[in-house]
Amino acid sequence: MNAQQVRQAQDKARRMLEAARIVITAAESASLEVADFGLGELDRTGLELITYVNNDVYCAKELVMFPRQTCPEHRHPPVEGRRGKMETFRCRWGRVYLYVEGKPTEPIKAVIPAGGEPYYTVRREIVLEPGMQHTIASDTLHWFQAGEEGAIVSEFSSTSSDECDIFTDPRIVRAPKITD
Amino acid sequence: MNAQQVRQAQDKARRMLEAARIVITAAESASLEVADFGLGELDRTGLELITYVNNDVYCAKELVMFPRQTCPEHRHPPVEGRRGKMETFRCRWGRVYLYVEGKPTEPIKAVIPAGGEPYYTVRREIVLEPGMQHTIASDTLHWFQAGEEGAIVSEFSSTSSDECDIFTDPRIVRAPKITD
Repeated sequence: MNAQQVRQAQDKARRMLEAARIVITAAESASLEVADFGLGELDRTGLELITYVNNDVYCAKELVMFPRQTCPEHRHPPVEGRRGKMETFRCRWGRVYLYVEGKPTEPIKAVIPAGGEPYYTVRREIVLEPGMQHTIASDTLHWFQAGEEGAIVSEFSSTSSDECDIFTDPRIVRAPKITD
Repeated sequence: MNAQQVRQAQDKARRMLEAARIVITAAESASLEVADFGLGELDRTGLELITYVNNDVYCAKELVMFPRQTCPEHRHPPVEGRRGKMETFRCRWGRVYLYVEGKPTEPIKAVIPAGGEPYYTVRREIVLEPGMQHTIASDTLHWFQAGEEGAIVSEFSSTSSDECDIFTDPRIVRAPKITD
């Protein structure tokens, strides 16, 4: 991504938060994180997020997803002897298609990003609409995609260390590389 | 409190959540907790809340406070060998006057509930407006009051065990007693 793409994505995420009446501070707005997972197709594979708090016990984030944007399959392994991150996704706005380990749903409602098919292996579908939530156990595979209008999701979890996440797709780089 | 008072408070809290565009499920709406702390003056001393998730690591709640309603001074002691609850209050709607240990603010903006003066001992004031948040360390005293319009606060924390909270006011009973 280049700096302009990041700015555009931040603006889009800010407008979605505003429409959902979720207030963030000027500092949070300025540092709104845009992750394209190194695939260079942000509108299809990516995530916009604000970390409200992340300490040695718990973490809370707001995730903003553009229409049909996908957070690719990954798991949170144990880190420094601590159980991997456990997390609860609560849909605040829009709709989310969440996929976790278990009996596959057939057919699924999400559209797997073209070229990424081998890297979306879990297919048990959970549909989250506003007010609905689901908790994902430590170190288990999951991925999710926003519906046609996008989505805003509150994430409540144990300590987050995104840089340790293990993605199924070997092409993925979690820390964004931003060029001028 | 009697059952009718609880129902009225639940209705009022539901209307505030709706005004703030915070969606809850029918089950959450039906079990919306109303706490009067045993003082029988809910509008002045009380709290309405929904617990989204509370597991052995983290907890997330939505707190609804009526205009000038006060959550009385308390602390979260260690429970079963675990560090006491640490919590982050994030104001989503309205305004909150939060008081924590430290250099007292003089004068404070909250109105201490009449008759409860000896039981509000910490006076370092933190004013939270939408998007603003504050994290309270384990086992430290705090209390808070909503502003003139009430408030909605997201609470992100470590495991919650409300029944173990220690209140400064010896008259307080945390678990509500509801009569017909």
